[in-house]
Amino acid sequence: MARVLTGVQSTGVPHLGNILGAMLPAIEMSNQSENEAFLFIADLHSLTTVRSAEVLRNNTYGTAAAWLALGFDADKNTFYRQSDVTEVTELTWYLNCFTPYPMLANAHSFKDKSNRLSDVNAGLFIYPVLMAADIILYDADVVPVGKDQKQHLEMTRDIASSVNSQYGDVFVLPEAVIDEKVMIIPGIDGQKMSKSYNNFIDIFLPEKELRKQVMKIVTDAKALEDVKDPEDSIIVDLYSFLANDEELGAMKANYLAGNYGYGHAKQALFEVILDRFGNARQEHSRLMADLNAIDEVLLKGAEKARLVAQNTLQRVRSKLGYHS
Amino acid sequence: MARVLTGVQSTGVPHLGNILGAMLPAIEMSNQSENEAFLFIADLHSLTTVRSAEVLRNNTYGTAAAWLALGFDADKNTFYRQSDVTEVTELTWYLNCFTPYPMLANAHSFKDKSNRLSDVNAGLFIYPVLMAADIILYDADVVPVGKDQKQHLEMTRDIASSVNSQYGDVFVLPEAVIDEKVMIIPGIDGQKMSKSYNNFIDIFLPEKELRKQVMKIVTDAKALEDVKDPEDSIIVDLYSFLANDEELGAMKANYLAGNYGYGHAKQALFEVILDRFGNARQEHSRLMADLNAIDEVLLKGAEKARLVAQNTLQRVRSKLGYHS
Repeated sequence: MARVLTGVQSTGVPHLGNILGAMLPAIEMSNQSENEAFLFIADLHSLTTVRSAEVLRNNTYGTAAAWLALGFDADKNTFYRQSDVTEVTELTWYLNCFTPYPMLANAHSFKDKSNRLSDVNAGLFIYPVLMAADIILYDADVVPVGKDQKQHLEMTRDIASSVNSQYGDVFVLPEAVIDEKVMIIPGIDGQKMSKSYNNFIDIFLPEKELRKQVMKIVTDAKALEDVKDPEDSIIVDLYSFLANDEELGAMKANYLAGNYGYGHAKQALFEVILDRFGNARQEHSRLMADLNAIDEVLLKGAEKARLVAQNTLQRVRSKLGYHS
Repeated sequence: MARVLTGVQSTGVPHLGNILGAMLPAIEMSNQSENEAFLFIADLHSLTTVRSAEVLRNNTYGTAAAWLALGFDADKNTFYRQSDVTEVTELTWYLNCFTPYPMLANAHSFKDKSNRLSDVNAGLFIYPVLMAADIILYDADVVPVGKDQKQHLEMTRDIASSVNSQYGDVFVLPEAVIDEKVMIIPGIDGQKMSKSYNNFIDIFLPEKELRKQVMKIVTDAKALEDVKDPEDSIIVDLYSFLANDEELGAMKANYLAGNYGYGHAKQALFEVILDRFGNARQEHSRLMADLNAIDEVLLKGAEKARLVAQNTLQRVRSKLGYHS
């Protein structure tokens, strides 16, 4: 059985692009019986940029509720808040002492962040070491990562190898699984859907607001009666991720037939979202109205995670010469 | 009551210079009823340079045994291994996120270390943040520091202030007490006694070896019968820290009278060491032959320290927005 580890940023409620591009594939992977998923909300990493307790807290709840609502099985797998298993910070210190300073100073992500942000703090600098600790604390075999995270996985392996070569086999070296066929989900303006472009669709909004977001999808100025090109339409693109073949075929036919306005297409997209995510929307609302229920799930997950973490730390402490 | 916090490097058995210059004054301060001393062995910091489990472990035991043997009262005060209260690493992560990167990059100690050492690791870079966490985790009021540590205390106050100003009063700001009248204890070659000059006297050695070290003290080539200058003698200097006025007066008179060889003076110094540290030597041997007894004391101290640490962390977590 492969232990698959995934850390998710807690930037609040995930949007449709996150859900289709990352969350549903991860949930599918976690449901396979040969895999055991460790999924955590990376709220310690959040402190490198978030400066409000309320935002931090709400982001975590919003993220957790979305994963659970979309069907992540927290009983079969292990779902926890990073900050609830503080063992990871202890391992971070140990790993710091085996991480060459220049490796961090030259990391792409640090250079990028130090160019963009005014508050360049030491947390941003140490970020990849905390990430390495997140992974090797749980003896993870496999870490699915985007291309932008490839360097972090290489650093993780380098740091772990450095300890192993000096102290004998302490850590499992994780394998990165890089998803080459990344799904690009367009936002309402046609660019990649992203929080930072503010072009996203939040499927967990109340119906009226959700419909408003869908209705804002950018189109050309063709009139109702005009024939339209289904191969050049953000609406059709989004619809294709959600509708079945028959529904998609029907919409394309309507585009080509004319007398089918973009408003009709948007309404169809809106309805397929409601249809596809009806249960998830309901479950998300229920959870967000009962934060204790979310805490309960996460704390149970943290307990499971902690057992593995403490086991690893005991091994590390004894190898390094600490009381264990 | 002032809480006085002291971290000690665990570089193994402290030598006579450490004992006279730092340990005995600290023990005296800790015995005062108006003070509560938190004294810890900084074995997490050690990992920035030590690469052997055995060395790390032995250094800790040697250091702990010396403090206890010299009369540090671990019941009145709180004596612990840094690595036994891992809460400090959690606080270190939080503080990292409030520590400007340039502050660490420009720290004297980091510049100095990165010039000297071939293995410049991230632990060395983050060192001052771990130190800050060591201090504010325990709400320390007072930290006695040498001049070389002054900058670290200023950094600690800066980091703590930064959190306080953004999240309300979270941390107690520690005051540095800088000892201006630093005692310089000469080594056997007349330079400041130091491990790195290999000119130290280890009072915990077996008598024969201890005597050998004392006999190696450098002198001029005056003959037995010659008159000698007590104001220009390493032996007299060292003797002055240990002997009473009468004994010191006698040695000086002997120097000026002639027919008193350096060998006689060294023998007197050796004897005053045995006399002054007889009990400490015995207790040190006993402890080093019973490492479990040392562990017991340190683990008891760690339990006391952990109560304070957890209290602080709960405050911090709730302020920052983590589950507490």
